[in-house]
Amino acid sequence: MKEIRFGLIGTGYMGKAHAVALNSVAAVFDTPLRPVCDMICATTLEGATAKARTFGFRRATADWRDVTSDPDIDAVVIASPQSTHMDIALAAFQTGKAVFCEKPLADDLSAARKMVDAAEASGRANMTGFNYIRTPASQFAHSLIQTGRIGRIHYIRAEHTEDFLADPQAPSHWRTKDRGTGCMGDLAPHIINAALRLAGPIESVCADIQTVHRERPGPNGPEEVLNDDQAHLMCRFSTGASGHLFISRVATGKKMGYAYEIYGDKGSIRFDQEDQNALWLYLAEGPEEERGYRKILTGPAHPDYLPFCQGPGHGTGYQDQIIIEMKDFLNAIETGEPVWPTFRDGLDVQQVTDAAWTSFETGGWARV
Amino acid sequence: MKEIRFGLIGTGYMGKAHAVALNSVAAVFDTPLRPVCDMICATTLEGATAKARTFGFRRATADWRDVTSDPDIDAVVIASPQSTHMDIALAAFQTGKAVFCEKPLADDLSAARKMVDAAEASGRANMTGFNYIRTPASQFAHSLIQTGRIGRIHYIRAEHTEDFLADPQAPSHWRTKDRGTGCMGDLAPHIINAALRLAGPIESVCADIQTVHRERPGPNGPEEVLNDDQAHLMCRFSTGASGHLFISRVATGKKMGYAYEIYGDKGSIRFDQEDQNALWLYLAEGPEEERGYRKILTGPAHPDYLPFCQGPGHGTGYQDQIIIEMKDFLNAIETGEPVWPTFRDGLDVQQVTDAAWTSFETGGWARV
Amino acid sequence: MKEIRFGLIGTGYMGKAHAVALNSVAAVFDTPLRPVCDMICATTLEGATAKARTFGFRRATADWRDVTSDPDIDAVVIASPQSTHMDIALAAFQTGKAVFCEKPLADDLSAARKMVDAAEASGRANMTGFNYIRTPASQFAHSLIQTGRIGRIHYIRAEHTEDFLADPQAPSHWRTKDRGTGCMGDLAPHIINAALRLAGPIESVCADIQTVHRERPGPNGPEEVLNDDQAHLMCRFSTGASGHLFISRVATGKKMGYAYEIYGDKGSIRFDQEDQNALWLYLAEGPEEERGYRKILTGPAHPDYLPFCQGPGHGTGYQDQIIIEMKDFLNAIETGEPVWPTFRDGLDVQQVTDAAWTSFETGGWARV
Amino acid sequence: MKEIRFGLIGTGYMGKAHAVALNSVAAVFDTPLRPVCDMICATTLEGATAKARTFGFRRATADWRDVTSDPDIDAVVIASPQSTHMDIALAAFQTGKAVFCEKPLADDLSAARKMVDAAEASGRANMTGFNYIRTPASQFAHSLIQTGRIGRIHYIRAEHTEDFLADPQAPSHWRTKDRGTGCMGDLAPHIINAALRLAGPIESVCADIQTVHRERPGPNGPEEVLNDDQAHLMCRFSTGASGHLFISRVATGKKMGYAYEIYGDKGSIRFDQEDQNALWLYLAEGPEEERGYRKILTGPAHPDYLPFCQGPGHGTGYQDQIIIEMKDFLNAIETGEPVWPTFRDGLDVQQVTDAAWTSFETGGWARV
Repeated sequence: MKEIRFGLIGTGYMGKAHAVALNSVAAVFDTPLRPVCDMICATTLEGATAKARTFGFRRATADWRDVTSDPDIDAVVIASPQSTHMDIALAAFQTGKAVFCEKPLADDLSAARKMVDAAEASGRANMTGFNYIRTPASQFAHSLIQTGRIGRIHYIRAEHTEDFLADPQAPSHWRTKDRGTGCMGDLAPHIINAALRLAGPIESVCADIQTVHRERPGPNGPEEVLNDDQAHLMCRFSTGASGHLFISRVATGKKMGYAYEIYGDKGSIRFDQEDQNALWLYLAEGPEEERGYRKILTGPAHPDYLPFCQGPGHGTGYQDQIIIEMKDFLNAIETGEPVWPTFRDGLDVQQVTDAAWTSFETGGWARV
Repeated sequence: MKEIRFGLIGTGYMGKAHAVALNSVAAVFDTPLRPVCDMICATTLEGATAKARTFGFRRATADWRDVTSDPDIDAVVIASPQSTHMDIALAAFQTGKAVFCEKPLADDLSAARKMVDAAEASGRANMTGFNYIRTPASQFAHSLIQTGRIGRIHYIRAEHTEDFLADPQAPSHWRTKDRGTGCMGDLAPHIINAALRLAGPIESVCADIQTVHRERPGPNGPEEVLNDDQAHLMCRFSTGASGHLFISRVATGKKMGYAYEIYGDKGSIRFDQEDQNALWLYLAEGPEEERGYRKILTGPAHPDYLPFCQGPGHGTGYQDQIIIEMKDFLNAIETGEPVWPTFRDGLDVQQVTDAAWTSFETGGWARV
Repeated sequence: MKEIRFGLIGTGYMGKAHAVALNSVAAVFDTPLRPVCDMICATTLEGATAKARTFGFRRATADWRDVTSDPDIDAVVIASPQSTHMDIALAAFQTGKAVFCEKPLADDLSAARKMVDAAEASGRANMTGFNYIRTPASQFAHSLIQTGRIGRIHYIRAEHTEDFLADPQAPSHWRTKDRGTGCMGDLAPHIINAALRLAGPIESVCADIQTVHRERPGPNGPEEVLNDDQAHLMCRFSTGASGHLFISRVATGKKMGYAYEIYGDKGSIRFDQEDQNALWLYLAEGPEEERGYRKILTGPAHPDYLPFCQGPGHGTGYQDQIIIEMKDFLNAIETGEPVWPTFRDGLDVQQVTDAAWTSFETGGWARV
Repeated sequence: MKEIRFGLIGTGYMGKAHAVALNSVAAVFDTPLRPVCDMICATTLEGATAKARTFGFRRATADWRDVTSDPDIDAVVIASPQSTHMDIALAAFQTGKAVFCEKPLADDLSAARKMVDAAEASGRANMTGFNYIRTPASQFAHSLIQTGRIGRIHYIRAEHTEDFLADPQAPSHWRTKDRGTGCMGDLAPHIINAALRLAGPIESVCADIQTVHRERPGPNGPEEVLNDDQAHLMCRFSTGASGHLFISRVATGKKMGYAYEIYGDKGSIRFDQEDQNALWLYLAEGPEEERGYRKILTGPAHPDYLPFCQGPGHGTGYQDQIIIEMKDFLNAIETGEPVWPTFRDGLDVQQVTDAAWTSFETGGWARV
């Protein structure tokens, strides 16, 4: 049992999730490496100090360079805004730290490529944060596909749909201003990551991208919405399969519609994050009259479930996905083996996003 | 109460469905016009005679011209193969008959246009058979949209997915030979019809169409599959909405996946023909903590349900859709008012199918 | 192909359902016996005449004796109020007619026994109308159990729940006055019939029966409710299994909650009439990680589905259950073989109802 | 922010769950009291030492008296076998500690009463561990009922069903030997607790209790099963409502069937722990055609969800229930206010269990 000192940069939505994971991962998974909550970085020192107390960190700072340059820190979790990812990551690899970075890796492809280069040059553990693919159900889906249980895949339909901006009267917001926080920047990476993981490399895409509500109320009257509300793309996979991805932050009624349906010639799979503890599996075998989608509740027989509970169907939740990620990141640090998804895998996602924009702007298919 | 004499051409899948509808519609709906099963036409006289006995028709023939030319016959139902539709319809309108024609109207656009012209020149009742859109649930969906209950629509996702050819070892078949019986010819019309009905006219489409299993076992070795197994298209609607339609006969596990999800700015709707007696409705109103998709079971409060049963949730089925169609067709004959979908509405569907093929062949968006 | 002339007594809810079935059963099932709608009986001659026109009957009467005494009539369907069942049935057997009688057979056990005696003495086809058990899904459930697919059954939970009187302000009504139209008289027979069919004979029961809303608004002020709103009973089956039946007409939200869950030592089955085209089956076989309830959509592989549609998952509905009943009744007449459920099977149901009342009144377990 | 030192007794299923909760609760809820993992007690010192390392406890012991007598320990969590609860609790209250005790409180009523007396005499925080009722969904159900949203309740159907002993070949086990580990001892307390919480006090019960598989394979041949596999009870509540509880460890296919349906005169509620992030609500209001059960996904608008995630529908899991319990226990310690369910509430549950046994043994209704 060896301690490993963490610096956490960012204390918002994802920052908190990682803080909790750092506090619980060792007890849940009995990891050989025991994380120590060492330094936390927020926008202000006051804020950082408060969060250090809440999350049990020893030290606080308002300057992320204090984290990346501190020789006592072994690993850094980047959960700050996307525009800060590259600089932090480069600095952290410079000082030899293992780096976990929230998705999407960077503002643009060139930044993402620099991060991958730095990661690979450093030889240190690096991981991109796509938490949803780590539910026991989605891990099991991947395993079923890998072992050929549903045969050759010919179609995948997937979506990441939420409705937090579905109301046209929801006020103008930082989320409605930058490309990075549009649905293609914020939500698409998750579902593209799932598509790549489950159905393989994407060769070309054809996309349509829309701002549904073009103005939103601001403090001084209507303000223009500068990024995208919904998008969809048809994909051609290198395996010959086809697919469709739908991304929306205005899908009224959808709260966490990270969902996919995958059709193979021996079976098919359905999943919806809104019921994340179930995987639906259809097998084209056995007597016709007994065939149907079976709702498999995750349990000790499925990946990464047992450490949370001995009883099947008792359920894991959002926070548990982050704990699983942290366990895998610790494992990468311990063993020196890359853990999927590395920074390079994060770059792969960004290449698809990039091709989708190209397709939309040119009005046709674009190669990835 | 007046009798109206029907000729029925075709005694297969749809022919039987219409025969049963002709036998029951008057009792179910107490229609002012009472259909009489007069003449039935099958490929052979022997077959026709047997079917006449089974379905209660007075006369049998192997020549559809006996039907269209008989002065005693008031109305014709065309349920024969697609390639015969045009000739029969033109002949029937010529002799002043009301004509019901199964979808899709015709082999190609020009044939469909001739049929529409003949229908409109004759001034007789004419109707295209898209039965699925006539469930009480889908009629209710249409009514909710028309009355603005879910607001302005910005996205529709729809599919018609089945798996009757999902098995790569399913033998070569007449269904695997002609464009008309590929998934674009056979299944797409239903879901395009639904999209037009629910989300309005489509302006342009971008399609990808595939033969998934390129060979199938024939009696003397592998035979090439000559038509399409799966297809999908992105749509842009004249309202500004976007949409995606997925069509497949190889969607392993899907038995009757005629399904749609429609997102508006005040609510959304979900439907799946596999559970055709329910419509899911989400309304973005009332306290946040009480919001959710509600599963509405169809009942006497919904269109065309009560004649089948006084109790809600007791359910209608496939055959009942055909009975509802027949009731509406009788009403068109009686009142002289066009009934949706007329032949022209059937043509609208075919124009979208046609544009999808153009899009696929040219590799980009195509205008409808 | 031989004609068989029917008299139909009663033109309400069930009367109409049988009228439609008589019009369509031959076309749907190509039955050797072809029913002829001969005479219909309603409360008034005017009403009967109107219904004869609507439902296509040749003759009308306001006196059911005209039906039972008419030598041209071969078979009688009794769909009139429960209190009339016995007299009609006895008269009909007297003149040698086949008799179909809606559930429940009679007002009380002694009347039901007389009917069974008359039926068996006459040697004519006799059948009690429990339509819900005739869905393809419930027939398939029965078949799975009979073939041992779910092993030895140790528990059944079943219910027949609706909410047509859930509103305490729903007015006083003939349905709220007699024991026969309380939930034990009106709804319980269906679910008891299902329990007997699926889990075997019941040896003893322990029941609790309640009037939830003791007064309802009448035209001149509140009126007392004289029958039962909800009831439940624990059962001990002769096989050693246990069970629970819940019956309610005040189950707010339930529209057609005829549902059951059956646990065996090799599997289990779930069914809900509100989604009547699906049967859920769990099999305790195969790898643990692939186990789950499968949702089997009924189709041509299941009993009595194919005549309604060649495609699986396309669905049958309420009216189709009645058509299936009529097909089976015709078969009983044709072959002379008894068809389940005969009058005796209807009596078995009534014996359980009776024991439930005894149990409730004595406050303990009662033998059936 | 004040530290509070915990002793944890028991390191199995529930022991681990509490250990993780102690590690994460402060970070998740930013609790004013910060738990310190001080001493852990397992059966052997070696085991305890290993668990101390895994779970981050400072000290280890194999004697629970070391925990209860240690002056530095403020609070004790009892997660050891049921037969040890009373002695530990009495000792802990003796030395003035706050005590959290897993359900069921004790082996029998008299032991449970002693524990309640000791708890109340000590004046220290005391809580019984019924974790399932603490999901955001079940808390929300309680709140809906309390505010009258579904009106006066007239029926509750509830169950706790699992299938871990459904296989008759599952070997004989300590779980198949003692009354305390039968389904009435192990599972019933959870669902009785839910019934009491949601529908109010139970006045009398009528129960049937069964050992389904009477023998199981042992190392030297078949061994008798000495406790109960399934049980069910009808309940009469003090409000006049009725109810039914079904408990089973042999409900083939059920993994975590902690589920309830509650009918009121204005609405109804459905919940199933197998999909613990949803609550189904039916409201008998608004237009008839728009009524249906709505599936409400829990989110920040519901109790105790937001600390786990800002996005609705992202889901909480089993472990999170224990974290919520721990937050509430800390709050009880901090404020001195009792937190539901106290030891007395645990006793209430045990009184119902006891009455169920009496009822079964006497063959009729028993008062609680």
